[in-house]
Amino acid sequence: MNTILFELYASAVDTMKICKQLGYELGEIDIRQFPDKETYIKINSDIINRQVIFVASIDKPNNKFLPLLFAAGTARELGAEKVGVIVPYLPYMRQDKQFQPGEGITSKYFASIFSQYFNWMITIDPHLHRRHSMSEIYTIPTYVLHSTTPIANWIKANVSDPIIIGPDMESEQWVAEVAKGAQAPFIVLEKTRKGDREVEVSLPKIDEYKTRTPILVDDIISTGKTMIETVKHLNHLKMKPPICIGVHAVFSGEAYSDLLNSGAEKVVTCNTIKHQSNMIDISDLVVNCLIENING
Amino acid sequence: MNTILFELYASAVDTMKICKQLGYELGEIDIRQFPDKETYIKINSDIINRQVIFVASIDKPNNKFLPLLFAAGTARELGAEKVGVIVPYLPYMRQDKQFQPGEGITSKYFASIFSQYFNWMITIDPHLHRRHSMSEIYTIPTYVLHSTTPIANWIKANVSDPIIIGPDMESEQWVAEVAKGAQAPFIVLEKTRKGDREVEVSLPKIDEYKTRTPILVDDIISTGKTMIETVKHLNHLKMKPPICIGVHAVFSGEAYSDLLNSGAEKVVTCNTIKHQSNMIDISDLVVNCLIENING
Repeated sequence: MNTILFELYASAVDTMKICKQLGYELGEIDIRQFPDKETYIKINSDIINRQVIFVASIDKPNNKFLPLLFAAGTARELGAEKVGVIVPYLPYMRQDKQFQPGEGITSKYFASIFSQYFNWMITIDPHLHRRHSMSEIYTIPTYVLHSTTPIANWIKANVSDPIIIGPDMESEQWVAEVAKGAQAPFIVLEKTRKGDREVEVSLPKIDEYKTRTPILVDDIISTGKTMIETVKHLNHLKMKPPICIGVHAVFSGEAYSDLLNSGAEKVVTCNTIKHQSNMIDISDLVVNCLIENING
Repeated sequence: MNTILFELYASAVDTMKICKQLGYELGEIDIRQFPDKETYIKINSDIINRQVIFVASIDKPNNKFLPLLFAAGTARELGAEKVGVIVPYLPYMRQDKQFQPGEGITSKYFASIFSQYFNWMITIDPHLHRRHSMSEIYTIPTYVLHSTTPIANWIKANVSDPIIIGPDMESEQWVAEVAKGAQAPFIVLEKTRKGDREVEVSLPKIDEYKTRTPILVDDIISTGKTMIETVKHLNHLKMKPPICIGVHAVFSGEAYSDLLNSGAEKVVTCNTIKHQSNMIDISDLVVNCLIENING
């Protein structure tokens, strides 16, 4: 069963590189909108009895999700043997319980629909918050890749004397791994969230690292409020201007320019969502995962 | 099992009227977007062991569809006994076969997802083109209502000496019913479609009806190209300025003003999609259907 890969929506992952390294065909697909905003879809490559892989950047997901399901439906209709999906950024992971009575647990409903349409999924650092494993909600094989190594390598290659700063106690293990890979010390923030957009932060023991370049790391930069508060806090403490690293460049509204203007030296992200801050390539993670789990 | 009805998205159907006539509770639901454009949903009314009905206008469907599924998922999670949906305008009915190899048959995939989330559906004049019945693709009970009578009544009350003009041979039966109800003669266009936006029309025997007011009727007005061509054609033949009636006010882009400016006397639609041209109320159809099929 040979494999054909289709890119849906502008993806930041290097699909050409993936196809080249694995000998996959890069398939041709037309997706356009009718005047009434319904989606038209046409797969131009031969996929009968083949494994089809869609690469789809589905941040800001509502508008993109139905066409992705249609793509999967079309692939099956045309005789694909398996349909897998690479979702570098997986949305709808945050609402993982009822915080108030009556709330919908959207992560669960999203996972349920998703699991019906694909045979397997690859994703990078999903926001596993109160959940221990993707298998609690995803019933298909789900390969979770971690950007720890590419981030650590980027830090080692680009920053001398860093101090890694994590966003909260929950992220401590992940931050510790980045720090270990970058051969640097780390600390984590104590933060108090007040609604969607308000956050208060404090940094214990930061004074010990005055001569180092602070590197703020987080999985998702959405509003950027936590990072902005932390940047201001570090400026106030007369630390060096920090470098902000996020795995996923969600950046809602003016978050990116707000973060740049808050006093950060630079903002760096992985290429899971296409953005001008993408400097850390995670394509190799995807290639290795495909070799180990899908090609075998 | 008593019933509670929720309005999702601005609907044009008179939900207050429906609730009042049937003794339903009008439920409270919060739908909002997080800064990252994910949808938050919260049902504020008690729905345990009750029948839940969502009224949802889902024209321009991609963005609205996932939140609608989440609403259904939330209702079930909270203990609803049944979840029905009133979709005054049903999208994704047009792509009902592969016109070219490789095309996705989106009407089928849409129906399949839809049928998993709801116990029943009510809709008005869906675009049944090459299909004979909704049950070919929808596996749930689907109640199809026809706007023939409200449209005929509107014509009878507002236009003297009309001649009803239908868009094509396929619509002849529907147009004949409107004409019968309006006690008026009718003819149908001969049209040739050339792509999504180009249409050529001709009107046999229209000369016999020079003294009458032409009434163009169609199920969906999307680009309005067919109607615009017909209006121009009628102007050219020195007929009276026509009245354009559509069931569903889809109106892509500038279609509404283009149609008005083409020489139509007025544009009138049913309230299946909220629009300034809504003049024909179809709420009574929905009320009667609920009494006959759902309340019993």
